[in-house]
Amino acid sequence: MKEVSKLMDYRESVRVVDATLRDGGLVNDFYFTDEFARALYHTNIRAGVDYMEFGYKASREMFDENKFGKWKFCRDDDIRAIVGENNTDLKIAVMADVGRCDYKNDIINRADSPIDLIRVATYLNTMPGAVEMIEDAHAKGYETSCNIMAISHAQESDLTYALELIGKTPVDVCYIVDSFGSLYPEQIARIADIYMNFAAKYGKKIGIHAHNNQQLAFANTIEAVGDGVDWLDGTYSGMGRGAGNCAMELLLGFLRNPKYHVYPAIQFIDEQISRLKREGVVWGYDLQYLMTGLLDQHPRTAIQFTKEGRTDYSEFYREVVAAD
Amino acid sequence: MKEVSKLMDYRESVRVVDATLRDGGLVNDFYFTDEFARALYHTNIRAGVDYMEFGYKASREMFDENKFGKWKFCRDDDIRAIVGENNTDLKIAVMADVGRCDYKNDIINRADSPIDLIRVATYLNTMPGAVEMIEDAHAKGYETSCNIMAISHAQESDLTYALELIGKTPVDVCYIVDSFGSLYPEQIARIADIYMNFAAKYGKKIGIHAHNNQQLAFANTIEAVGDGVDWLDGTYSGMGRGAGNCAMELLLGFLRNPKYHVYPAIQFIDEQISRLKREGVVWGYDLQYLMTGLLDQHPRTAIQFTKEGRTDYSEFYREVVAAD
Repeated sequence: MKEVSKLMDYRESVRVVDATLRDGGLVNDFYFTDEFARALYHTNIRAGVDYMEFGYKASREMFDENKFGKWKFCRDDDIRAIVGENNTDLKIAVMADVGRCDYKNDIINRADSPIDLIRVATYLNTMPGAVEMIEDAHAKGYETSCNIMAISHAQESDLTYALELIGKTPVDVCYIVDSFGSLYPEQIARIADIYMNFAAKYGKKIGIHAHNNQQLAFANTIEAVGDGVDWLDGTYSGMGRGAGNCAMELLLGFLRNPKYHVYPAIQFIDEQISRLKREGVVWGYDLQYLMTGLLDQHPRTAIQFTKEGRTDYSEFYREVVAAD
Repeated sequence: MKEVSKLMDYRESVRVVDATLRDGGLVNDFYFTDEFARALYHTNIRAGVDYMEFGYKASREMFDENKFGKWKFCRDDDIRAIVGENNTDLKIAVMADVGRCDYKNDIINRADSPIDLIRVATYLNTMPGAVEMIEDAHAKGYETSCNIMAISHAQESDLTYALELIGKTPVDVCYIVDSFGSLYPEQIARIADIYMNFAAKYGKKIGIHAHNNQQLAFANTIEAVGDGVDWLDGTYSGMGRGAGNCAMELLLGFLRNPKYHVYPAIQFIDEQISRLKREGVVWGYDLQYLMTGLLDQHPRTAIQFTKEGRTDYSEFYREVVAAD
């Protein structure tokens, strides 16, 4: 169970999802250049990535379009300007948050959209909203996933009940999301066990979205693969909120399916990600993220610490322990 | 087996070894200030670390004392200047490389030395030399470990035979060393299985020393703990050759034995490691190390890439693939 064909062969059902624009957009308020988005799109095609998530379908009533780059809103026309008719094997995804998306208006029929997959992000206390959005997206012809966030704060019995609710929808994939980067591989194995039982019962696929607060985003992702989880989120150089995500280049190096290629990932980092870093965009493992991860706290205090350019780690530790 | 008491309890037999001065010394040619070494020593005591490795007992005939800091040679007097009589629970270790150590002269009787543990580092092709050094150190009263390097390049049958040789010595601990940072947790589990069989047969302890080329040093270390491996190497901020090691602060946060404390580690990084970084000492995960790790190559080309301040990752990938 734990080993994927002794690391020699591969499982055909594995899917790789690039979440760079979406989770990475949380670092720079989605202000990516079109050149970056276009290079990323072509990189994903060359690397054999299966899905590219462009960003959020965020409500333009709730969020000011002048305060975010375009991938916070992912208008279909903006996606089309990058992908054209997208006559490729790479499918296009967007994320839609329960309660923060005017999905009835902003998500049109798939036949008229460049988008293939709607990823519905929800907390456990908004499951009925997620169910509604999944049903709406499915009726419009989309593939759908349900990304249940912050599960490290959930009771297993609540999680199990939420999965039962989701199991009755037409959703294709249900995600394990380690929002706070607090889970160890052993815990991923336990949680994957719960999800895999659900998957078997309802004929669903399972995915994982990991954060790197304890340098475990990649390790937790490959642990999950060994447990039967098929849909794997990665971002180039791990670009994502706070400590970032599972690095795509690590994931592509690990997977044995010959359709995946690591060299395009290296080129993209060399040409595009390095520039972002030179421009001062900051993400990735650092002590402040370890601390919130260890304490299973939301990373917002650690992100603030980073934004303020603070380096007084000892004082920050005292603050987060006091707030615990 | 895989879970250490469901991450709630702990195994009393676990030992934590700080290798910061030794593996970190490979980054800055062992030029640490006495203030740094002293702060590290007191940090280890406060953090509950079990062993502190000061550096190498390198041959002064083979290595020029003017070209390295003192911890390349670890004279007993230099250690004593830091630890005094060391009336603490923290034990003192040094590493002795087969073929690069005048152990007959430079390692005196333990009764007259501040050192407690001699860590004999060897390749598979120098096992008889390692056996001799282990027997010598044991006869002088030391605890001993055997650190078999570069095992990712070893045949399992050769490794098994080497362990048989070691099993007949009085060695206390035998180490799994992932010198190239190329191993995945699944492989660590397989290798740990071989080592644990040996441990049961000969009454030895097993240790792990991991490298972070694929952001797996910590993950591989906790995988090994779950497999029954007791001796765990870490370094503060992962300071070590190339991509560095398992970060001590992650390890201390993971272990549940209440004798371990993470706050002293954070303070040490805040006060001492941050300064090293500001001074331009460079180590840790980066793309060039991922590449040599993926290809299971020695990291020397990646270290050279770092030293030269190169950032042309794509070109480097073409170089290492060509050299493969």
